[in-house]
Amino acid sequence: MTKSSSVDLVTQTDQKVEQLIIQSVKEKFPTHRFIGEESVAAGESCVLTDCPTWIIDPIDGTTNFVHTFPFVAVSIGFSVNKQMEFGVVYSCLEDKMFTARRGKGAFCNGQPLEVSAQKDIQQSIVATEFGSSRAPEAVDRIFCSLKNVLSVPIHGLRGAGTAAINMCLVASGCVEAYYEIGIHVWDVAAGSLIVSEAGGVLMDVEGGEADLMSRRIIAANSRAIAERLVREIAPFRPPRDDAPPPKQ
Amino acid sequence: MTKSSSVDLVTQTDQKVEQLIIQSVKEKFPTHRFIGEESVAAGESCVLTDCPTWIIDPIDGTTNFVHTFPFVAVSIGFSVNKQMEFGVVYSCLEDKMFTARRGKGAFCNGQPLEVSAQKDIQQSIVATEFGSSRAPEAVDRIFCSLKNVLSVPIHGLRGAGTAAINMCLVASGCVEAYYEIGIHVWDVAAGSLIVSEAGGVLMDVEGGEADLMSRRIIAANSRAIAERLVREIAPFRPPRDDAPPPKQ
Repeated sequence: MTKSSSVDLVTQTDQKVEQLIIQSVKEKFPTHRFIGEESVAAGESCVLTDCPTWIIDPIDGTTNFVHTFPFVAVSIGFSVNKQMEFGVVYSCLEDKMFTARRGKGAFCNGQPLEVSAQKDIQQSIVATEFGSSRAPEAVDRIFCSLKNVLSVPIHGLRGAGTAAINMCLVASGCVEAYYEIGIHVWDVAAGSLIVSEAGGVLMDVEGGEADLMSRRIIAANSRAIAERLVREIAPFRPPRDDAPPPKQ
Repeated sequence: MTKSSSVDLVTQTDQKVEQLIIQSVKEKFPTHRFIGEESVAAGESCVLTDCPTWIIDPIDGTTNFVHTFPFVAVSIGFSVNKQMEFGVVYSCLEDKMFTARRGKGAFCNGQPLEVSAQKDIQQSIVATEFGSSRAPEAVDRIFCSLKNVLSVPIHGLRGAGTAAINMCLVASGCVEAYYEIGIHVWDVAAGSLIVSEAGGVLMDVEGGEADLMSRRIIAANSRAIAERLVREIAPFRPPRDDAPPPKQ
């Protein structure tokens, strides 16, 4: 089935996995809250409070999943007082379990992760995505940023097709940075902690502090690379994840 | 080190792997010819004759290799009378061995491969790359094609960062098509047979027969999808692989 556009896909598996995760957690923690991609699509609220909250993307990379493209992840982040406490991204086909706990480091299958030490953007790979909007004005902004970033010049642009895995690629040092406009809090909640615990930085695409509800993010190995990307990205503001729903 | 541009990388490993392959084959087949990426970079000729010829990319995805991005391949094709007889692509980090022999099918780790059955380009994923040229006119053409293809609209654009693996993704049915302008014969020789033996088609980016020396290719699951891409691609002609070297 499709959601926001003809290329924004959802499967029964997304919905079943989300139900499975939420039901399992609820049995142990009946007072905790949830922000899940499919629950929000079904009309649940998407506001992050100070309460313990599980932020869930049951399948990040649904388009990949539908096409059997080999990057598909389950992403679960846990927040208290609006601060991420732990994050887990499981890259199912690679069988890589990325984990991070605040202040305790980031790991892949138990091995510690560290971002790339590269400080020169011209020696860097940057990950991003084309996104699931095909509205000409959004596509124009996305292509403008892509061309600016490529022409810095950098070594290359890549994209796994999932924000969660792109962030784990930053944490693993395989790419120096990842940026995207249009992602949702469930795409990046877990990954944001994995990046910062691997020594990376998070930033808004116009500089300043990253806001997980703003649908915009830069995750980079260093402040210098993140700030250099800010200069190349053509920013725009999709409706926030916690915006009130449009009146019918 | 760099080759054609500051982002066209080569490592000692590329050179060592190519020497290893050529030396091993020469011991058994002393009369066979070779077209290897690093030998050509070192000044060897790049002309495909009727003689038995091994066409070798020792590391396809050198930029990925340098950055530890998880798609890196060794590609070896074998041609007689200018026709590919077998092709092997080993995706090293995935530990996937893709093989094809003319008329005998294509396989991954021994399991038969088949292209996607999807006939609707709007339900398709297309693989391509940004390439290693940062010349503004080439970048403009590449971005023009990207935007046209994305806006068909299709489900998404992907790129593994190696032509050989992109072609194996077509053969595996993970993407419906791959196109690129700027690749070389060693990037696609093995992959071209793997795609066609998996039931796919090869075509030039302006339609008509694919020419492995032309540095342009479409590999698709079907003629219909390939022809649809021809309408969206902004073509240009890089110097052919078998062009005489420029006079000094």
